Amino acid sequence: MPATTPFQINRFPVPEIKDLPEDIRNRILAVQEKSGFVPNVFLVLAYRPEEFRAFFAYHDALMEKKGNLTKAEREMIVVVTSNANQCQYCVVAHGAILRIRAKNPLIADQVAVNYRKADITPRQEAMLDFAMKVSAQAYAVGDQDFEVLRTHGFDMDDVWDIAGIAAFFGLSNRMANVTSMRPNDEFYSLGRS
Amino acid sequence: MPATTPFQINRFPVPEIKDLPEDIRNRILAVQEKSGFVPNVFLVLAYRPEEFRAFFAYHDALMEKKGNLTKAEREMIVVVTSNANQCQYCVVAHGAILRIRAKNPLIADQVAVNYRKADITPRQEAMLDFAMKVSAQAYAVGDQDFEVLRTHGFDMDDVWDIAGIAAFFGLSNRMANVTSMRPNDEFYSLGRS
Amino acid sequence: MPATTPFQINRFPVPEIKDLPEDIRNRILAVQEKSGFVPNVFLVLAYRPEEFRAFFAYHDALMEKKGNLTKAEREMIVVVTSNANQCQYCVVAHGAILRIRAKNPLIADQVAVNYRKADITPRQEAMLDFAMKVSAQAYAVGDQDFEVLRTHGFDMDDVWDIAGIAAFFGLSNRMANVTSMRPNDEFYSLGRS
Amino acid sequence: MPATTPFQINRFPVPEIKDLPEDIRNRILAVQEKSGFVPNVFLVLAYRPEEFRAFFAYHDALMEKKGNLTKAEREMIVVVTSNANQCQYCVVAHGAILRIRAKNPLIADQVAVNYRKADITPRQEAMLDFAMKVSAQAYAVGDQDFEVLRTHGFDMDDVWDIAGIAAFFGLSNRMANVTSMRPNDEFYSLGRS
Amino acid sequence: MPATTPFQINRFPVPEIKDLPEDIRNRILAVQEKSGFVPNVFLVLAYRPEEFRAFFAYHDALMEKKGNLTKAEREMIVVVTSNANQCQYCVVAHGAILRIRAKNPLIADQVAVNYRKADITPRQEAMLDFAMKVSAQAYAVGDQDFEVLRTHGFDMDDVWDIAGIAAFFGLSNRMANVTSMRPNDEFYSLGRS
Amino acid sequence: MPATTPFQINRFPVPEIKDLPEDIRNRILAVQEKSGFVPNVFLVLAYRPEEFRAFFAYHDALMEKKGNLTKAEREMIVVVTSNANQCQYCVVAHGAILRIRAKNPLIADQVAVNYRKADITPRQEAMLDFAMKVSAQAYAVGDQDFEVLRTHGFDMDDVWDIAGIAAFFGLSNRMANVTSMRPNDEFYSLGRS
Repeated sequence: MPATTPFQINRFPVPEIKDLPEDIRNRILAVQEKSGFVPNVFLVLAYRPEEFRAFFAYHDALMEKKGNLTKAEREMIVVVTSNANQCQYCVVAHGAILRIRAKNPLIADQVAVNYRKADITPRQEAMLDFAMKVSAQAYAVGDQDFEVLRTHGFDMDDVWDIAGIAAFFGLSNRMANVTSMRPNDEFYSLGRS
Repeated sequence: MPATTPFQINRFPVPEIKDLPEDIRNRILAVQEKSGFVPNVFLVLAYRPEEFRAFFAYHDALMEKKGNLTKAEREMIVVVTSNANQCQYCVVAHGAILRIRAKNPLIADQVAVNYRKADITPRQEAMLDFAMKVSAQAYAVGDQDFEVLRTHGFDMDDVWDIAGIAAFFGLSNRMANVTSMRPNDEFYSLGRS
Repeated sequence: MPATTPFQINRFPVPEIKDLPEDIRNRILAVQEKSGFVPNVFLVLAYRPEEFRAFFAYHDALMEKKGNLTKAEREMIVVVTSNANQCQYCVVAHGAILRIRAKNPLIADQVAVNYRKADITPRQEAMLDFAMKVSAQAYAVGDQDFEVLRTHGFDMDDVWDIAGIAAFFGLSNRMANVTSMRPNDEFYSLGRS
Repeated sequence: MPATTPFQINRFPVPEIKDLPEDIRNRILAVQEKSGFVPNVFLVLAYRPEEFRAFFAYHDALMEKKGNLTKAEREMIVVVTSNANQCQYCVVAHGAILRIRAKNPLIADQVAVNYRKADITPRQEAMLDFAMKVSAQAYAVGDQDFEVLRTHGFDMDDVWDIAGIAAFFGLSNRMANVTSMRPNDEFYSLGRS
Repeated sequence: MPATTPFQINRFPVPEIKDLPEDIRNRILAVQEKSGFVPNVFLVLAYRPEEFRAFFAYHDALMEKKGNLTKAEREMIVVVTSNANQCQYCVVAHGAILRIRAKNPLIADQVAVNYRKADITPRQEAMLDFAMKVSAQAYAVGDQDFEVLRTHGFDMDDVWDIAGIAAFFGLSNRMANVTSMRPNDEFYSLGRS
Repeated sequence: MPATTPFQINRFPVPEIKDLPEDIRNRILAVQEKSGFVPNVFLVLAYRPEEFRAFFAYHDALMEKKGNLTKAEREMIVVVTSNANQCQYCVVAHGAILRIRAKNPLIADQVAVNYRKADITPRQEAMLDFAMKVSAQAYAVGDQDFEVLRTHGFDMDDVWDIAGIAAFFGLSNRMANVTSMRPNDEFYSLGRS
């Protein structure tokens, strides 16, 4: 049984866009203009404006940042760790973004289920091995992990980026699962043709 | 790194269709005629004709059988347990079949990641709870599980069906992961529009 | 509390041998003639004739097949993975067969509890390490596993055999646990003297 | 072997306070003035100013927010989930804060190791059960969890707070473990007398 | 590969019986006289006389003690928890003792693999559920466990006995696995006819 | 909710010191004289005099024994494995002893939460890796573990000592959790200045 009805996008009250603080309303209207719809994560988190601002500032710092990881690679990290955490919203929404970023309609479903069998490079597989270790057993991360990543050409800033993305979406996965955040129907087919 | 190159569909030799025993060749040609392509599972398993015959006989006995479970429900069991087992082939291929059987472009991705958040009925959620228990800790299945299923209207034959499907695709998941069976590109977009 | 009474061999109805389809009845009578009793797995699965035929065809394709694995080695795989899956029927019944095949009254109990401490060769230990990986985390099987097996003299067909046996008995373990299939009393003492 | 030497507080470069952006420098100087020392989390995260700002904005939104959870209860959530995640920095630093907030020199060590044996109320134990579920298996959070929390007097905003704190410190735990963030010596004895 | 050769009973030096302290020598000679052979646990642990004395004093205090648990029930606890811990020595040796105590040639193999399917009473199943919880997650033992046991007629002393036996053999299992303690061949067939 | 009230030190009856057998009473009075208080483990286990004697004989044989492990190193093993087992009594009590033995107020909290991040030597980290393997998966201990320990300078007697301490405190952890043994308030601050 869905924890939400077709008319609900999560368990918590959803504010009206018009009633939101101006900065949050503007961000939401901007994403709506660009995407053609408002991803539900914006509406669900807007229930808590301060957390909304921190969440998206953190998101942008990690996902819009310059660096050696491509935008598609960042999305791969999100999709892989989110499926391990069984987060429906993040796998569906970021799967769509990954397909678009990578211009590849297959890659998101491949990495979501088992990245070891996906059409990715050995460097990307090492990146995802590390992201999964951060997600599932960060306590055991040690010198050896840093050395493996270095042999694949990652520098210390790349390591921070991988870890940061895996850690941040771990937070996102948990909030999406607790709120029963529903992926917008639009995400499922984006980037598939 | 993919264990297979774009020209490979798995780690093992793939026989030519024309060289296969007649019954196997006929089954493959029939599915090709119906689907427009040959799902790779047929070509990979044809390497072992006797196992091929037993595999598809078992498959048909469980998936084509009459009973109270709809065909879409049977596919839900496959998709849910296969994602837990991280079987790329089964999630992608049976996700396509589920979308078609359920006439619902969203349902496969929903149940694959977290069936507890999917647009399904309480009866279907109980079915999937049990399927996951069979898949992950069958040793602990007991009277209480049978009673929960009965309160949702399942009879003993339904229980056998759920268990059989979860158990059979556990076999399938393991063979697909060991062989690195590659899902056909066609599956990803089937049933999405 | 046993889920079955002394007069029951599982939770589901058990057909009369005389009422079974001829091919199934003949197989059961043949095993009875050879063994002196009818192993309960035949009677339990006969409740579903089509699944019965597929199950034993699959079983024979893997266990009666020619190849580099000895019959005793195939039974070791069954016993080790079945104890990890807590399947009483398979450990007890195939433990008996292993003792007979290996002409060794100790080996079945040794490998069931901890094959790392059993009187087996390093090659057999590598075989069982791989069988356990297929059983418990097939998603992570990769190039490295194939290389370890090759250094122990296994070829690709042997790898398929090991994986197939572990995967097939994973199915069998789950059905035995869900049905509460009871091992025949005869199995416990077979091959012990 | 410590991944850091006595002169290092983590694996990454630590910026000079004087070289930091003004807002970050001011926040650090303010906490130094209040506490008498600069907790290392400020110096480690200052390596990434944008993430620093988002991190502490998120932290304050959850930990300084008004609501039904006391400040001590919020710290209990941090200490319990951080020990499960084996995060040395968070257990030591927030253990100190918990002792101070609760005016209880024993409570931090009690809940860190096993909150089920700590001097807390049944309501607090239910809060921590839920925080641990969010931390370890958020995918399974469902109606039943919300009902248990309601019977203990928690409203929906309290549930969001508990989940948010567990999720946010899950992020923090992962970054502290990857960076090998070292707890300041001062934390160990704070609030013990 | 066995960690021990046929001539070794464990990884550590084995003292000559004649060189042992008198009390230890006497205990060993007494068990040899009674059983017809010296169980290897006596010879392996005799390498450390003080630990030997403490070990068997603890053993006797729990296993020879008067109380509501029968001797067969105490052995059931040993066999069930030892198989979960994959301790070959304890499953084989105490399986033999259980068959003798229970005058039942089937019971040891039944409970070792899956006690939920064994010919035991509901009271015994509750006892073994609790023993497994003590063995695998004692940190979560709470009021509810005590209440379940009470409804099955166990008093507080029985609870201590169950916990003590599970805990003590957890120690024994770990020492047997680290030393690679080999079960004597005699144990395998004892009590089977 | 604490399973014990402020006036209780565990779930079971606590004997009066004056009513205890003389040897037990003397041991308790001696520790009281030396420490200034009676650690609760003495009072809780005195409920069962024979087990008390065996427990402390075993304890002394492992912890007071001569050998290459320092007393502080032995306590590190206790603290690390006890936190993994979530045993409040042992982490708090032996954390105090570790601080005193090591003359280091930080070390106990460091190793309890994550010994990989503690101020210890590589040799000590290898010791704790092995202790954790004994505690959590002794069944998999094999030749490779012995070789790693040897490269760090441990001899076979040291290995036995590490294993014995991890195994013995596994017993202690389970009894403390089942009895809800309460650490004395005195332990929390010992050795911190």
